[in-house]
Amino acid sequence: MPITVVGSIAYDTVRTPFGERERMLGGAAVHFALAASFFDEVHVVGPVGEDFGEAELELMRGMGIDVSAVERVSPGKTFFWEGEYGWDLNSRETLDTQLGVFEGFAPKLSEASRCSDVLFLANIQPDLQLEVRAQLPAARFTALDSMNLWIDIARDSLVKAIQSVDCVILNDAELRQLTRKPNLIAAAQELFSWGPPGPRVVVAKQGEYGAALITREGFFALPAYPLESVIDPTGAGDTFAGGFVGYLAAHPGQELSEELLRAAMAHGTALASFNVQEFGTDRVVRLNAAEITQRVTDLQQMTSFSGAPFRSRKP
Amino acid sequence: MPITVVGSIAYDTVRTPFGERERMLGGAAVHFALAASFFDEVHVVGPVGEDFGEAELELMRGMGIDVSAVERVSPGKTFFWEGEYGWDLNSRETLDTQLGVFEGFAPKLSEASRCSDVLFLANIQPDLQLEVRAQLPAARFTALDSMNLWIDIARDSLVKAIQSVDCVILNDAELRQLTRKPNLIAAAQELFSWGPPGPRVVVAKQGEYGAALITREGFFALPAYPLESVIDPTGAGDTFAGGFVGYLAAHPGQELSEELLRAAMAHGTALASFNVQEFGTDRVVRLNAAEITQRVTDLQQMTSFSGAPFRSRKP
Repeated sequence: MPITVVGSIAYDTVRTPFGERERMLGGAAVHFALAASFFDEVHVVGPVGEDFGEAELELMRGMGIDVSAVERVSPGKTFFWEGEYGWDLNSRETLDTQLGVFEGFAPKLSEASRCSDVLFLANIQPDLQLEVRAQLPAARFTALDSMNLWIDIARDSLVKAIQSVDCVILNDAELRQLTRKPNLIAAAQELFSWGPPGPRVVVAKQGEYGAALITREGFFALPAYPLESVIDPTGAGDTFAGGFVGYLAAHPGQELSEELLRAAMAHGTALASFNVQEFGTDRVVRLNAAEITQRVTDLQQMTSFSGAPFRSRKP
Repeated sequence: MPITVVGSIAYDTVRTPFGERERMLGGAAVHFALAASFFDEVHVVGPVGEDFGEAELELMRGMGIDVSAVERVSPGKTFFWEGEYGWDLNSRETLDTQLGVFEGFAPKLSEASRCSDVLFLANIQPDLQLEVRAQLPAARFTALDSMNLWIDIARDSLVKAIQSVDCVILNDAELRQLTRKPNLIAAAQELFSWGPPGPRVVVAKQGEYGAALITREGFFALPAYPLESVIDPTGAGDTFAGGFVGYLAAHPGQELSEELLRAAMAHGTALASFNVQEFGTDRVVRLNAAEITQRVTDLQQMTSFSGAPFRSRKP
């Protein structure tokens, strides 16, 4: 099923203990779209400024992504983010954020992007998420991401946006903050209570620890793919979301079964692991399907165990 | 195979968002021993003061634990710890620590505790760990825990202690600090390079995210058992270690295979999940084997997925 993603298209300047790169192609919609493009047709909706290069658009087109709804705003500058990571990559400091054309962003969906069956609302102001959601009333699967800023300053809107989608993909700290519940299971239960219909799938992104999936029926958790060297975690969460949502989009005949969702988690996890191995989008644009499948198979091997009962010394 | 554990026996006063309890039986050796007692014979070595109650010894005896090497030091007070947890239980503040008889602790092994095949050196000063290790030269499986304090002030001794055991069980932040490697896989590789013989199994405790197992041959990770309500995390790590080491001790015929180690991880995880559901040792002392096996089976279900290859849109 075709996928529409609405979110930021950015230039990122990133410093990690392993090097520094300036003005790389980035942004949530870009990372999502690149990952999802392995699975299905992707339409990107988002603004860029007059400084945005043709090469970057061509890179996305080369990945089979429809960029016709990427809106070039003039005069204006492309969203810019600069950040620096600590030695173990678990902490990062934002050094500069220039919203540029993202500041007055009012998503304009093209005819094609309005016809998608699958919608991913990347982290943007929740009223805009609601507005976009309303333009795809017949979408068969909808998901959103958000951030602590919107929980702080636009919680009511965010709650409404969440009530309008099937799936919420957030960091676990954000899930706690949003629901005011101290643990993941309680937080997910809280989100389920925001229906009907409300979300029926909650994905908690846990950074280096992987991700957890909570539905009304079950719980599933998957570690991050273990890597001896992580170069740049920027965009890992959006890349995960692209793999996860992309896999679901590519299996339209199936209900949102626990089995399907778990396989989607594995594909998201595999995609994210490639993303962090090089700066920016470098690794994902060179990826092939066999490499993705190999990591999914590896993950399966790394998480399986046999739980034979033991002979206890006690009754 | 019989197990000897050397470590703290304590009284804990714990405040969590769900209540407060004073002077509960605690300490690393106690939590470890209670968990391991489901699997095999356990000998506890550690000091208590004149304030230590007969009821506490009787509780351990009632679990089938040998407490004859629990040394009562007089005059002196039992190790005391007081702490308070934050709202999501991921942060805690130590309000009071009184080492008491633990300050001058020189482990005295009984004849029985010296004959164990399995040795767990809970978190004590690493020179003491080395001393105890030397008293069980023929032990077939040895493991240790430690803490940031010893990495800070006794790193050389801790390195020697680690070189003398088969298995290291540490928090992942401690593994990073100890090895000065920014990620888990690199940290484990560093520990493996400290041989020969040196450790061949590294377990990274990850709190609410579960635990990871790294050997020269493979990687395995298991989430914590999901709970809607966690009451008191104190002792979860030692309870995990007790389940993990206990399971290995109960399977003496098998080599330390990846399969055996993974099953041990699952049993440690199950034990830890019970520990945190009530204050102190309350839940674990009421536990039975069927409950443990049920959680291991649940964990297996919660981590399994099918990784069928997908039809990619790209080569």
